[in-house]
Amino acid sequence: MSGQTSMGVVGLGVMGRNLALNMADHGATVAVFDPWVEARDRFEAELAATPGITITPVDTLAALVEALPRPRAILIMVKAGEPVDATLNGLAPLLEAGDVLIDGGNSRYQDTQRREAALRARGLRFIGLGVSGGEEGARHGPSLMAGGAPEAYAACRPVLEAIAARFDGVPCCARVGTDGAGHFVKMVHNGVEYGIMQILAEAFALLRDVGGLDHAAMADVFRRWNATELASYLVEITAVILDRRDDAEGADDGPLVEAILDTAGQKGTGRWSSEAALALGVATPTITESVFARSLAAAKPERVATAAVLPGPTVPSTAPHWDPEGPEVEALRQAVLGAVIATYAQGLAAIRAGAREHGWDTDLATVAEIWRAGCVIRAVLLDDIAAAFRAPNAPDSLLRAPAFADRITAAQHGWRTTVAQAVLRGTPVPGLSSALAYVDSARSARLPANLIQAQRDYFGAHTYERTDRPGTFHTEWAPG
Amino acid sequence: MSGQTSMGVVGLGVMGRNLALNMADHGATVAVFDPWVEARDRFEAELAATPGITITPVDTLAALVEALPRPRAILIMVKAGEPVDATLNGLAPLLEAGDVLIDGGNSRYQDTQRREAALRARGLRFIGLGVSGGEEGARHGPSLMAGGAPEAYAACRPVLEAIAARFDGVPCCARVGTDGAGHFVKMVHNGVEYGIMQILAEAFALLRDVGGLDHAAMADVFRRWNATELASYLVEITAVILDRRDDAEGADDGPLVEAILDTAGQKGTGRWSSEAALALGVATPTITESVFARSLAAAKPERVATAAVLPGPTVPSTAPHWDPEGPEVEALRQAVLGAVIATYAQGLAAIRAGAREHGWDTDLATVAEIWRAGCVIRAVLLDDIAAAFRAPNAPDSLLRAPAFADRITAAQHGWRTTVAQAVLRGTPVPGLSSALAYVDSARSARLPANLIQAQRDYFGAHTYERTDRPGTFHTEWAPG
Repeated sequence: MSGQTSMGVVGLGVMGRNLALNMADHGATVAVFDPWVEARDRFEAELAATPGITITPVDTLAALVEALPRPRAILIMVKAGEPVDATLNGLAPLLEAGDVLIDGGNSRYQDTQRREAALRARGLRFIGLGVSGGEEGARHGPSLMAGGAPEAYAACRPVLEAIAARFDGVPCCARVGTDGAGHFVKMVHNGVEYGIMQILAEAFALLRDVGGLDHAAMADVFRRWNATELASYLVEITAVILDRRDDAEGADDGPLVEAILDTAGQKGTGRWSSEAALALGVATPTITESVFARSLAAAKPERVATAAVLPGPTVPSTAPHWDPEGPEVEALRQAVLGAVIATYAQGLAAIRAGAREHGWDTDLATVAEIWRAGCVIRAVLLDDIAAAFRAPNAPDSLLRAPAFADRITAAQHGWRTTVAQAVLRGTPVPGLSSALAYVDSARSARLPANLIQAQRDYFGAHTYERTDRPGTFHTEWAPG
Repeated sequence: MSGQTSMGVVGLGVMGRNLALNMADHGATVAVFDPWVEARDRFEAELAATPGITITPVDTLAALVEALPRPRAILIMVKAGEPVDATLNGLAPLLEAGDVLIDGGNSRYQDTQRREAALRARGLRFIGLGVSGGEEGARHGPSLMAGGAPEAYAACRPVLEAIAARFDGVPCCARVGTDGAGHFVKMVHNGVEYGIMQILAEAFALLRDVGGLDHAAMADVFRRWNATELASYLVEITAVILDRRDDAEGADDGPLVEAILDTAGQKGTGRWSSEAALALGVATPTITESVFARSLAAAKPERVATAAVLPGPTVPSTAPHWDPEGPEVEALRQAVLGAVIATYAQGLAAIRAGAREHGWDTDLATVAEIWRAGCVIRAVLLDDIAAAFRAPNAPDSLLRAPAFADRITAAQHGWRTTVAQAVLRGTPVPGLSSALAYVDSARSARLPANLIQAQRDYFGAHTYERTDRPGTFHTEWAPG
């Protein structure tokens, strides 16, 4: 680490504590504060039990500021929303020009833009920092997505790079633009995470309900997939999950996953990603379907009631089960691969559009690079994505990068047969099918939107353009 | 008309002029004002050429207020956004307690809530009025969706009911809740409109590109469909559009629709509908796919570039064309029917959730009733939907209403084969397939969200519920 090597941390929840320990591990001088005395006491006890770590807990924000050399860098890890504003308002009067405040929570990027402008007006620097990787990442190496002015980032970069995850020795930490850019990229990361989790859940449903595989065989399938270009943290943990037995008191030692209620929670960032895409006019159907899938999953009593009145298709009871190493499972792998690539394409398109809208100089190759380790969507594919956007004459869209166009083309047969079979069998695959429709729409030189324009001109006189000449046109369509 | 029979109109654009003429036709005393003298002059000239119509144009807001008996009712038909606030601010000081202002523009329902509260605090009444039906509807009978206090609605109800479209003699006009309810229902109407237009566009693409039908045959198909339960304004105008020849200077007299550029426009309310659904946690995938489809359509140069590098599936060139009265076309009709029902179900679920969130006593049967005539999505099915929600023990969801569960069940075979074929052929059908996945998810007593919960607990310690006992649980998943 060179340059500024000290940092304050406000907020000693699970993320703040572990990031502080991570900093101390890397030789930073760390002072910490939490307004809750219980949180401070708990962390002091944890420190006492961890020899070799030097962290200074303090009792007030003023003491925290005093404990830090100038220019000060203070990482705020409190609950997103009002607590962030309260902390900023508490700290700002104690600071001096050139000090930098860092919000490492899951803040909305619009809030980060507002806060950055307000602090800049007071001569202070502000970084909105997306942090991915959960508790484990915070302790041993998260992916860090920073938004802010170059000089603000320079002041905290040494510590952030030191604690970040590494991919081939390169820290998964970068400035991706000014003000809200870091939180925007983190928001889209979570949207992509929603999409990939939905795709893997659909694969699980097809393997189990159409393929007839048991959980040990399904775990093997995901382990094998993890040795292909699908290699990724989420595929890896899916195999571990499917292997886990239910050892709860009185349980039957069956697969633990089947004892878990099928109502997925959500904390908002997936939804924000879809809202941002809608506002920007960018299509992110697979991310959005995965948000909607969680809403539908949450409505379990309604689903049970609907199941009683809406029978599925008649399926021959003699339909053969799948060979775990047979062609149906390979077709499904192709479907998952194609859909995951399409989900990355959607997320990166949203980031490109957000950067254009807000004037951020976000480099998509850098984004892919800092997602290669530390974060939930870390995957071997991301290294290829980075390379695709680093290449000379890189296309705007991942779909047009030669390596990915080739992968999609090779995957399409298995992808199409998998989706067609799911549709015929009545197994919902909104992730796999929306991703395929996205690719098919994106590669359609001609879409039937001409009919939509005609309808709009018919009932609303909205006019239309023609294919053969410039200008806008209106037709009196109604007969007679 | 009984009760209050006079109304002022501010804003003499196409909607304001035609609504004023409609009111005068029905015997209302109408005074009109537009801040643009050109708009006033044009309308005065139009009135001079239309004997038998009595409308009083005035030159100032004060004169408008003076021209109306108390309690005054004034309909504002100006551009949504700041012009509405400016008009309200101009009028409010001139009015007296009990007067009612009506915003008939495409305002965001949140703006309507804010304005209603502000005007109520000043002792004035306010109605946010959703108006559908375009110029033709405004002139001869729109569908009117009113939000506001009962006494505010009572003051303008006679005129609004007089000018509204009629279905079996019943005016397509109702109060659907307080403050923003009318604009919320109108917003969802437009979302449903987007969804149905997308579904019809996909049917057109399949008939043309997979079925090989020419435009005359396609027009016949839509005309035949319009004699079934799909009978609706949008199906009807699609037939008219497909029959239209291109008589532009130098054109080849081919189908006009094929001379129209395939880049559909949008004015926002479809997007707002998806944003509201995301915020409410309600799944509206088909509405949202139709918004995204317009975004993808708008990116025509990108699509052309992508088409060059992403080939579709290999399709046998000997694939037979469809008989316009054969089974493939009937299967497609079933697909369209199922998808349209699913789109209505999504929209009505969004309205139910919005009403619960905002405390509106919105009756879904009433909503379906006022959509039966005058508006763009008017359709025979809406009468059945109204009946389904009027029935004793009506279910929460359209999918569980017996008449619609039966229709979906009968349609599923054709719907599934149509989507499967499109998927295999590479024709994008995001509307038809998202609607099918929606129904398949909604009727799944078990969804694979248990895997998603396990993943969330694995990487984020988000905990999970179990199927066999109460409480929340956390597992240390990582091996070793």
